Amino acid sequence: MPEPSPDLEAIRRHFATDRFAATNGVEIAELAPGRARTVLQVERRHLNSIGIVQGGAVFTLADLAFALACNSRGRVAVAVNTNLSFLKPTPAGTLYAEATEISRSRRISSCTVRVTNDSDELVALFQGTAYIKTEPFPPRTEAE
Amino acid sequence: MPEPSPDLEAIRRHFATDRFAATNGVEIAELAPGRARTVLQVERRHLNSIGIVQGGAVFTLADLAFALACNSRGRVAVAVNTNLSFLKPTPAGTLYAEATEISRSRRISSCTVRVTNDSDELVALFQGTAYIKTEPFPPRTEAE
Amino acid sequence: MPEPSPDLEAIRRHFATDRFAATNGVEIAELAPGRARTVLQVERRHLNSIGIVQGGAVFTLADLAFALACNSRGRVAVAVNTNLSFLKPTPAGTLYAEATEISRSRRISSCTVRVTNDSDELVALFQGTAYIKTEPFPPRTEAE
Amino acid sequence: MPEPSPDLEAIRRHFATDRFAATNGVEIAELAPGRARTVLQVERRHLNSIGIVQGGAVFTLADLAFALACNSRGRVAVAVNTNLSFLKPTPAGTLYAEATEISRSRRISSCTVRVTNDSDELVALFQGTAYIKTEPFPPRTEAE
Repeated sequence: MPEPSPDLEAIRRHFATDRFAATNGVEIAELAPGRARTVLQVERRHLNSIGIVQGGAVFTLADLAFALACNSRGRVAVAVNTNLSFLKPTPAGTLYAEATEISRSRRISSCTVRVTNDSDELVALFQGTAYIKTEPFPPRTEAE
Repeated sequence: MPEPSPDLEAIRRHFATDRFAATNGVEIAELAPGRARTVLQVERRHLNSIGIVQGGAVFTLADLAFALACNSRGRVAVAVNTNLSFLKPTPAGTLYAEATEISRSRRISSCTVRVTNDSDELVALFQGTAYIKTEPFPPRTEAE
Repeated sequence: MPEPSPDLEAIRRHFATDRFAATNGVEIAELAPGRARTVLQVERRHLNSIGIVQGGAVFTLADLAFALACNSRGRVAVAVNTNLSFLKPTPAGTLYAEATEISRSRRISSCTVRVTNDSDELVALFQGTAYIKTEPFPPRTEAE
Repeated sequence: MPEPSPDLEAIRRHFATDRFAATNGVEIAELAPGRARTVLQVERRHLNSIGIVQGGAVFTLADLAFALACNSRGRVAVAVNTNLSFLKPTPAGTLYAEATEISRSRRISSCTVRVTNDSDELVALFQGTAYIKTEPFPPRTEAE
């Protein structure tokens, strides 16, 4: 079962409809087979109770890059496990997430996402495991 | 170095100032020493591109419960690593996160957070590791 | 595709041929659908350079319980991701690992493994994610 | 509190006394500040019930590289959480673990360990979080 040829533009348009990511200001910057990059301009609404970017904002940024990378081959993949290490607090500026698919078997995709700041310092490291469905893009949507 | 006696009401007020959690509708439901509960009423803005609650929304819900539980002893703790397994997709309804501190040494707090839906089904499982500072509550805030 | 009826005795015999676990003294104590228990009698050979049970010994104990639990339904499952928190050092005695399958979809099994000591204290917590193959037990073995 | 100047030879000798790693054939190949490399020659005793290297053997290999890397600055560090993704099964040959300390604060060290085979393929990825004690090398050993 060869992987379908991915329509990267369609995949990008599809993920641009992610309401939670869009509402929180996470933007898609790049998408290529097995790689993706997302960006977050830090605002006051992203901060936690001690004035640094909340873990959930970092996760949302990294998770969208992960979803793009593991879906970039044209087959639908869904997250099953994620691991996130917080390395450096971020009070302001821009955050960048760079996802790389480090391994792909017929049914499992593994991606590493590096989250960096304006000084190119590593602020968080994310490891994601996704299950690859047989279903090609675009995926079925849950009825609302 | 005994743990300071925690002022749970002050801790709860402090975490209520978490802008990212509050903006995204995550509410604090309960707080006790070593235990916390948060709630999220799912709305369209929490959904991803296939119409289920986005991973970042689940993370934000679980992470606030984790932060409350590991800070509930009256000493400031900060997240260093989190692991999140996605077990069941959620298209609508309410999500609940119940954090329990399963282990606490002088410097490390480990918490498990169970995320459940309206039918009390487990939809996600979160494991968090925090570093406990010597600093008592309230923590210093980053200058803005 | 209903799950095949599991032959628990055959599954137990199969995992008893795990050379690495057996060589290191890990024993299978119990096996039931979605649950398994393994035991390790701590000896000097299990200790690390500071005289406590080495992380790899704790992992091997927990991992065998995980493998048993996710394979206990009669379909072959393979580990894709594991997370292990070390909560309490163990200098001697017996360690017990109790695995519970907390979620099972058609292709993914998630198990939690609690590792306890003789005083029933939690010394480690393990979370495992496995991919479920279509292949029923016994699995194909790699040619040597 | 500046970090003590590390005596790499003493650190290496100390970790060579790890009985569990030594008994299972894990060898220390390289040690430098923030970096370490370990090696395992795969034998039949390292295999699991389907004839591939057991997860516990991969963990033990990666964990020793992690322990060396996070202790390589001359201050005692202890593992608190580890995450291990299994990417490719290994039936025979040699396995190499390369640990890199990707972040170090006053009290937390984070290391990534890549496990590769003879063909330089990535077979596993390990992420470790350690707590750094104030205690300099050599660490106190548990009385036996």
